[in-house]
Amino acid sequence: MATEPAETAPDSYEELVDHVERLTYVSDASDVLGWDQQVMMPEGGTPARSKQSSALSSVAHDLLTDDRVADWLDDLAGADLEPAQRAVVREVRRDHERATSVPEDLVAEISETASNALPVWEEARAEDDFEALAPTLERLVELKREYAAAIDPDRDPYAVLFEEYEPYMGLDTAERVLERLREELLPLIDGIEASDADLADPFDGEYDPDAQEALSRDLLDELGYDWSRGRLDTSAHPFTSGTQFDARVTTRFSPADPMDAIGSTVHEFGHAAYILGLPDEHYGTPLGEDRDLTVHESQSRLWENHVGRSRPFWDRYASLVGDHLGVDASPRAFYEAANQVYPENLIRVQADELTYHMHIVLRFETERDLISGDLAVSEVPAVWNDKMEEYLGVRPDTDSEGCLQDIHWTHGSFGYFPTYSLGSVLAAQLYASAADAVPDLDGKVREGEFDPLHEWLTENVHRHGCRYETDDLVREATGESFTADYFLEYARGKFGDLYDL
Amino acid sequence: MATEPAETAPDSYEELVDHVERLTYVSDASDVLGWDQQVMMPEGGTPARSKQSSALSSVAHDLLTDDRVADWLDDLAGADLEPAQRAVVREVRRDHERATSVPEDLVAEISETASNALPVWEEARAEDDFEALAPTLERLVELKREYAAAIDPDRDPYAVLFEEYEPYMGLDTAERVLERLREELLPLIDGIEASDADLADPFDGEYDPDAQEALSRDLLDELGYDWSRGRLDTSAHPFTSGTQFDARVTTRFSPADPMDAIGSTVHEFGHAAYILGLPDEHYGTPLGEDRDLTVHESQSRLWENHVGRSRPFWDRYASLVGDHLGVDASPRAFYEAANQVYPENLIRVQADELTYHMHIVLRFETERDLISGDLAVSEVPAVWNDKMEEYLGVRPDTDSEGCLQDIHWTHGSFGYFPTYSLGSVLAAQLYASAADAVPDLDGKVREGEFDPLHEWLTENVHRHGCRYETDDLVREATGESFTADYFLEYARGKFGDLYDL
Repeated sequence: MATEPAETAPDSYEELVDHVERLTYVSDASDVLGWDQQVMMPEGGTPARSKQSSALSSVAHDLLTDDRVADWLDDLAGADLEPAQRAVVREVRRDHERATSVPEDLVAEISETASNALPVWEEARAEDDFEALAPTLERLVELKREYAAAIDPDRDPYAVLFEEYEPYMGLDTAERVLERLREELLPLIDGIEASDADLADPFDGEYDPDAQEALSRDLLDELGYDWSRGRLDTSAHPFTSGTQFDARVTTRFSPADPMDAIGSTVHEFGHAAYILGLPDEHYGTPLGEDRDLTVHESQSRLWENHVGRSRPFWDRYASLVGDHLGVDASPRAFYEAANQVYPENLIRVQADELTYHMHIVLRFETERDLISGDLAVSEVPAVWNDKMEEYLGVRPDTDSEGCLQDIHWTHGSFGYFPTYSLGSVLAAQLYASAADAVPDLDGKVREGEFDPLHEWLTENVHRHGCRYETDDLVREATGESFTADYFLEYARGKFGDLYDL
Repeated sequence: MATEPAETAPDSYEELVDHVERLTYVSDASDVLGWDQQVMMPEGGTPARSKQSSALSSVAHDLLTDDRVADWLDDLAGADLEPAQRAVVREVRRDHERATSVPEDLVAEISETASNALPVWEEARAEDDFEALAPTLERLVELKREYAAAIDPDRDPYAVLFEEYEPYMGLDTAERVLERLREELLPLIDGIEASDADLADPFDGEYDPDAQEALSRDLLDELGYDWSRGRLDTSAHPFTSGTQFDARVTTRFSPADPMDAIGSTVHEFGHAAYILGLPDEHYGTPLGEDRDLTVHESQSRLWENHVGRSRPFWDRYASLVGDHLGVDASPRAFYEAANQVYPENLIRVQADELTYHMHIVLRFETERDLISGDLAVSEVPAVWNDKMEEYLGVRPDTDSEGCLQDIHWTHGSFGYFPTYSLGSVLAAQLYASAADAVPDLDGKVREGEFDPLHEWLTENVHRHGCRYETDDLVREATGESFTADYFLEYARGKFGDLYDL
């Protein structure tokens, strides 16, 4: 399954590709262990699984930082390569350089600190005791600054950290988009709060998890999930894991909130559809791998929001959902329920499609200032609460419902949050392009015909793997640079209509 | 979780142990992938999984054959070590020497030939066409002879191959035991065939797989399976996989044959109980690993046969089984059904406890002569059928029901079969010792009190891991060398009683 080199490709290219394939296989094996741990493993298995996972990480790290990789990359620096081969070399070089530039003991210290932080965060959240977590958080901020400095001491450390998750967009673009979301969504949210519109919600009981599961399976069938290359299971936090040969999704069933399972299932389906659309023949190299977090999240949000929260979708599936759950309601009622905006919500993962982005803007501004040193850890709770009040008009009573709610910083993940919003923004841009290219795309969704959308996404996004840098991929797919225009137009259109603005 | 070295242990011991732990973690990760493949993976996942598994095997092989391992072993050859440390060094040395003595291209060729042989065997068995498999089998015999010669050109190649599965018993002991089984079981089987006794069989319908599964779960509860460190699933062939922190079993449910699921579940429970009894604190080194196939099979057979097919077991569980399956029968009737002898059966995996060993003797004699060159592959079908007729009085009509029925030789596994019978023989010897040590063991089984048996097995077998060579382990546990006396006495007693001999 090696990437076919051009006739002229030097031996070092083939050697590099063999080596990188081995690295991918080891990393993917590690992902299988991760899936198993979250979905299947009995609780007692943790000590052994930690050892196994950390051994595979260490093997993968050794493969990535191997001196031969540097030699092959040197050899290939001036070589005459095909564009696809150049892309492989570009991606490997980036990963290799980042991995070799950070001292191993710093990597180990971050990993250990984050690992020890987990129970501290859990208890701090349970006890609403931010001060218990503060020293750990301070240490993690310091360590991640050191990490960024090891990669590039001359650049903004937050920009370097952001590139861990979104390597090619540039923090300036991300920042511009997030600022625009803040400026242009806030008036929309204000309008919704002032609106007299009363959206329907046909759910008012408890819904059997088995019925919800049967519904999720039917929806996956309808959307075109390939069960010969996937599975549906449940886990505490829904996620997707795997390769183009085996991309599995999980969801969860809350008796009181069947919309949560529907949304999660369709969201994870989008991630899986992306992975399953990667080219089989490039499995093992960057040409067969997904393009980082913004693009990944664009695929999940496209299906979750632009399909799953659309009026055509509910025209098609109101009766299927109603039958499974024993709810008799109109497509319009389900559509309204799927698009309720509730700014008073404090919790990011429970937020609606619109106010969600204010939760992200808040986190982005806070973590950026933490890393730059403009904000001290001790100031985080107050800043958090002030921003919640400013953006959404609601102030958390406790830090558990405020700055302690997310696990990301405890993991040492600073720079991750923005990719959630960037993914939504890209989803809108891609969906608009698909709608230009596919005649009557809304009508096709209303008929449950998803093949044309899959084909457009596969052709324009999935099949490229990591061949293009993010912005080039966006331009190839849509003819334009990354822009928030489509998302804002979509949001104003949909919510303006729903809330009579 | 490192094995604590003595104060005097040289640094090279600690370095060796760190390295071996890493190797174990990688191998155990590979086992997780194997479990997932057989139990959870969607069929489309095969191409990626093959790459992942083979990458982990290759990483494990590189770790085992690493030059530093040779250096550490050299360093430790004359070192002053604790007995437990000497055992670690002995086991690592054995594995390292075998792995380094076989050329890598021979290993690769065997692996590729066996892998290509699998569909050939499947088709040959489906088509009853031994000649289609014969050339592949010839090649595998040649390759395994080369493999044995690479390890030790001066010894009987079959003895060398046997040691792959049972390293410390010696082929002479195995041969002596198997000959004794043949000589002493054949008259017993003849007696049973001539007996007028008509054993009960209360099963005559179809039994719901869900009811069978609920029964299997209840039986695992009763036997003391630790669900916080295990799971029960189904797979085409029942198996057990994992570590002392997470030892999972599978079974299968045939509607017409609920005894099959009961037997498989209890058998796999025995394997899992062994693994779960290995010491947590030695996870990663040979002191925390199971002692090869004979001992492993002794644990599964002990629970399957000496517990699960015993009269006290059925006195206790006849009503549980009857309730789950809707069968109203006496403990004696279930006991008889569990111990039916049917020499006319042609298929090893469906054989009863007694005639099973004739299937093994036949395979042992055939594979030994194949490897020595005394038997040509083309002669296998005739020899097989002759032996079946001689030992069990029945001649297969087809090779599909004869020499094509098992996958082992197609895998290149010559020398594996004997361990099945040796495990049964050891099970009887261990159970007899446990019965000497535990007051009224039968009575405890009849009360569903399995803790004393678990404690005896953990104390005398499990907790030692690979500390002792097999025969020393047997002597430590039972005060005697490995012997077939107890098995033959047990078999004559039980079946003599059941069949009025």
